[in-house]
Amino acid sequence: MCGIVGFAGKEEAAPILLDGLRRLEYRGYDSAGVAVYHPERGLQVIKTKGRIQALADQVEAAGGMPGSIGLGHTRWATHGEPSDVNSHPHMSQNGRIAVVHNGIIENYAEIKEFLQSTGVHFVSQTDTEVVAQLLEYYYDGNILDAVTKVLHRIQGAYALGILCADCPDRLIAARKDSPLILGFGEGFHLMASDVTAVIRHTREVCYLDDGEIAELTPDHCWVYDAYLRPVEKKHHQVDWEISAAEKGGYEHFMLKEILEQPKAVRDTISPRIQNGEVVLDGVELDADYLHGLDKIYVIACGSSYHVGVAAKYILEKLLRKPVEVALASEFRYCDPIVSSRTLALVISQSGETIDTLAALREARRRGARVLSVVNVVGSTIARESDEVLYTWAGPEIAVATTKAYSTQLALVDLIALYAARQMGTIPEAEYAAAVAALEGLPELLEKVLEQREQIQYLASLYFNHPSVFFIGRNLDYAVGLEGSLKLKEISYLHSEAYAAGELKHGTISLIENGTLVVALAGYAPLFEKTMSNVVEVKSRGADVLGLTMEGFEKPMSEAVNHTLTVPAAHPMLLPSLEVVPMQLFAYYVALMHGCDIDKPRNLAKSVTVE
Amino acid sequence: MCGIVGFAGKEEAAPILLDGLRRLEYRGYDSAGVAVYHPERGLQVIKTKGRIQALADQVEAAGGMPGSIGLGHTRWATHGEPSDVNSHPHMSQNGRIAVVHNGIIENYAEIKEFLQSTGVHFVSQTDTEVVAQLLEYYYDGNILDAVTKVLHRIQGAYALGILCADCPDRLIAARKDSPLILGFGEGFHLMASDVTAVIRHTREVCYLDDGEIAELTPDHCWVYDAYLRPVEKKHHQVDWEISAAEKGGYEHFMLKEILEQPKAVRDTISPRIQNGEVVLDGVELDADYLHGLDKIYVIACGSSYHVGVAAKYILEKLLRKPVEVALASEFRYCDPIVSSRTLALVISQSGETIDTLAALREARRRGARVLSVVNVVGSTIARESDEVLYTWAGPEIAVATTKAYSTQLALVDLIALYAARQMGTIPEAEYAAAVAALEGLPELLEKVLEQREQIQYLASLYFNHPSVFFIGRNLDYAVGLEGSLKLKEISYLHSEAYAAGELKHGTISLIENGTLVVALAGYAPLFEKTMSNVVEVKSRGADVLGLTMEGFEKPMSEAVNHTLTVPAAHPMLLPSLEVVPMQLFAYYVALMHGCDIDKPRNLAKSVTVE
Repeated sequence: MCGIVGFAGKEEAAPILLDGLRRLEYRGYDSAGVAVYHPERGLQVIKTKGRIQALADQVEAAGGMPGSIGLGHTRWATHGEPSDVNSHPHMSQNGRIAVVHNGIIENYAEIKEFLQSTGVHFVSQTDTEVVAQLLEYYYDGNILDAVTKVLHRIQGAYALGILCADCPDRLIAARKDSPLILGFGEGFHLMASDVTAVIRHTREVCYLDDGEIAELTPDHCWVYDAYLRPVEKKHHQVDWEISAAEKGGYEHFMLKEILEQPKAVRDTISPRIQNGEVVLDGVELDADYLHGLDKIYVIACGSSYHVGVAAKYILEKLLRKPVEVALASEFRYCDPIVSSRTLALVISQSGETIDTLAALREARRRGARVLSVVNVVGSTIARESDEVLYTWAGPEIAVATTKAYSTQLALVDLIALYAARQMGTIPEAEYAAAVAALEGLPELLEKVLEQREQIQYLASLYFNHPSVFFIGRNLDYAVGLEGSLKLKEISYLHSEAYAAGELKHGTISLIENGTLVVALAGYAPLFEKTMSNVVEVKSRGADVLGLTMEGFEKPMSEAVNHTLTVPAAHPMLLPSLEVVPMQLFAYYVALMHGCDIDKPRNLAKSVTVE
Repeated sequence: MCGIVGFAGKEEAAPILLDGLRRLEYRGYDSAGVAVYHPERGLQVIKTKGRIQALADQVEAAGGMPGSIGLGHTRWATHGEPSDVNSHPHMSQNGRIAVVHNGIIENYAEIKEFLQSTGVHFVSQTDTEVVAQLLEYYYDGNILDAVTKVLHRIQGAYALGILCADCPDRLIAARKDSPLILGFGEGFHLMASDVTAVIRHTREVCYLDDGEIAELTPDHCWVYDAYLRPVEKKHHQVDWEISAAEKGGYEHFMLKEILEQPKAVRDTISPRIQNGEVVLDGVELDADYLHGLDKIYVIACGSSYHVGVAAKYILEKLLRKPVEVALASEFRYCDPIVSSRTLALVISQSGETIDTLAALREARRRGARVLSVVNVVGSTIARESDEVLYTWAGPEIAVATTKAYSTQLALVDLIALYAARQMGTIPEAEYAAAVAALEGLPELLEKVLEQREQIQYLASLYFNHPSVFFIGRNLDYAVGLEGSLKLKEISYLHSEAYAAGELKHGTISLIENGTLVVALAGYAPLFEKTMSNVVEVKSRGADVLGLTMEGFEKPMSEAVNHTLTVPAAHPMLLPSLEVVPMQLFAYYVALMHGCDIDKPRNLAKSVTVE
């Protein structure tokens, strides 16, 4: 849940490190630090609690940091509260080894106790400091050797960057279960948690694999396996535009990304529909294989899990195969029932979510075939899947996901239609209608976005309600889960989503005068049923904001305080359309509360610890 | 979600009706009313917003209500806010027909419009009034005839009680999808939503079936089908003790029922373990049938659904068959994948939960075999299941369930062991150990209850926290769901349960200084994993109340503010043990908030509307 960056070159390192950290801030931002080596000054470290800007101010106040090799880190606290002393880089006792780390060292307590028994004095509460201290303990003149010894002792997940004052021309990088990429330039090399930190300098990168160690100097880069045998790495060219990762005039990345959804969905869908047929390049799901399936497991976390909840309704309806949606963090430890007749559909924006990655490995170990839906090309989940379908959402910077969610959902629709077509479970005409509807989705999304001002107005009416319930049935319930999470993430309001029929089995006792209930009733077959539940909460004093499809606004508006609509459309598109007003509502509520929308407290964009 | 009672006899009706309503108050209590016929005074109605006591006061203020035939009703608002005018009984325009109703008339708006077009003037906002008015519209001297015509016109769920001033020697009863029982005495007959309202007067009852109509006079009782053909009904003897439904010295039924759990669980388990073998009388699940299953569906609502979440972990582990837990309200409308190779395990305390009943019927329609776990003998769900296992919890009066939950969980354990034994998926020694452990459960529950005072002390420390999160993994997560619901139901605090690994994918942004997190980490294999998440919330300022198994209290207490423990035990028993401190914590928090614990606002004991 942290971001790391390293630079070995001929220019001054500090500005490059600080710029890289700014781009990694989405991964965590409660504290930050840099370490730079300079032949006269030695190994110099500046670190502080707070945002990258606070660190940059301190570097400036110190008159800059000369030196052309160094490491940087932006932190999201796991072990030890955010503070100056718990910030990275961490130093060994003799001040000659600096370490930055993303991940968790699970057995740090045991190693710390051992080192303390040998007289080592620790200054922080972090798990990372044990790595620095243990390096010093093992170091006998060969840093690479010390690193391999340390890697054999530590358990857990890590991406590590190491700089030793005794060999100050090189950086050491190592990874297991946390992402780390290398960047190649003319007279310099970079390491980073993510390509966004390097694309200003180079587009040529490689992805370090689990267990690999790299040694970087300005002019050379060597990669080794755990036994220090050389490894040949494939280089990739990154084709993102830097501008795509910039705000483009918007106040927040989140708003920019909400408004980009028609384009992102179009980019995801249109290359995959050709002459009225869904075409999934690189995916081979034939009729025999699909008919032979016992089960489809959708595995994901957070918003991607909510895509899974919608996917269950959509896939079961079209394929008549049982679908189970599992939280990755639960799946990996529940001894799941998986066989070669299981298809695991794994969903992750970053492709680096550690829980999801671990669940993927567990599913494969048990014989499942893995099809992943991922936004970041070359990410670990993409590389470890049997087949991968990319969402072409482009880089998503705001911590609260919007366009990644929408493109994931669009891919689920494509997969469902493709598989149903293969299996013959969908009539010709129905298939043609659904494919045509899906092609029209970007345009419908444009129409929904036209209601921006109205939603802003409604947010201004309701933003002060202290607690909020989202209710809906079936697909509306899936959207309610995501609407509630959006609101929680960025506005810090306590909200909860309920299957509308379940509210009365307990939670309705929380409804009192002025409680805000957001009622989703766009799913036509259950409109009346959900409205019965609306009447129940209304009669207990709730204020109700309703959301339905065009054509139902009249009966709804008679029962609720305010009504929003989405265009009448194929039921499959309902979650894609309904989620947009929910995103905008959450955005404007958070804006009115003055929250830090793109970087909500406690959250990191890509969750690479358990 | 309402309660109805009717009396036709020779004594004064009003005191009997009021007493019956007091016993039905658990079904709803926002308003109440009675209608009594007297030859000189005609049809007299008294009704009021508020509790039964408010109604009794008005009856007394009116100098009593002479007459030996009448109807009573206690209401839980669905259509129209709680008010005097929306209370039942409802009268037809000419004041000669009185109706009480439990359920929802789904097409009431259309009928109301029709009647208004004929000049009928409505006084309330309820769906029930249309029944009274429509009866008057059809009535031409034969009330039974008018009733059948009305039943053909109305759609939805109902238990109806009808009294017409033109034939004042008889009550008419009718039901569809809402419970209604008849009671038989010497010179009197009763009707009621539940046996608790009649057992003071008689123990001889019969259960009206869907579509049936009954006619009750003091000396006769006739039951007809929808075409008015006579039906022979079987009579049952109720063997509950009245005293079992009394508080027995405790301040609240809830506390009494929490403390009764060792006995209730013993009553449920001990007759079903004989010589170390689980014996399930009346249940035939043989090895062939079980091995042939594709899937087990657990279908339930509210707390019973949480039993289902635990059941999934327990059953999948022991049987290696896929288990899906479904909210009944979602299951019935999601076009579920069910076949003759599906076993539906249906769980309901009352056996009358309408969503669960409808889901049961849907499952059977699609070919599933239904095994139900129910507390009320002869209830509709029990009668419509292929096989039924009763929880011997005795009557549960507090709206928030405790002992029913515990006995349901114990039955799940018994079913899991029985089926695993049949299938041969459990080694002999493991089976013997688990059965022995289960026999020891009541004693362990006694031990947990000894911590009552400590839990009361902790509640006094934490009751003022405005929002609460419950976290846990695997079986601990299942208990967290129930712990959170208990707190919500009776203390009105906004709380939410999370799979511990999922918190960081969004909701952790709500954690701030002083947020209360209840961390459940009794499941030994995942203790460390959950503790990592505890460290995360701690480092963001949360106050953490931990719950674990004996043996883990030391590492836990180093990380949390306060630690509770349950005795070391077989993992299968974990939810049964852990839920008890959660129940007590919710109870004492609600007590400190001065909440009306046994009858929380907005909630009814048995949810017989959708």
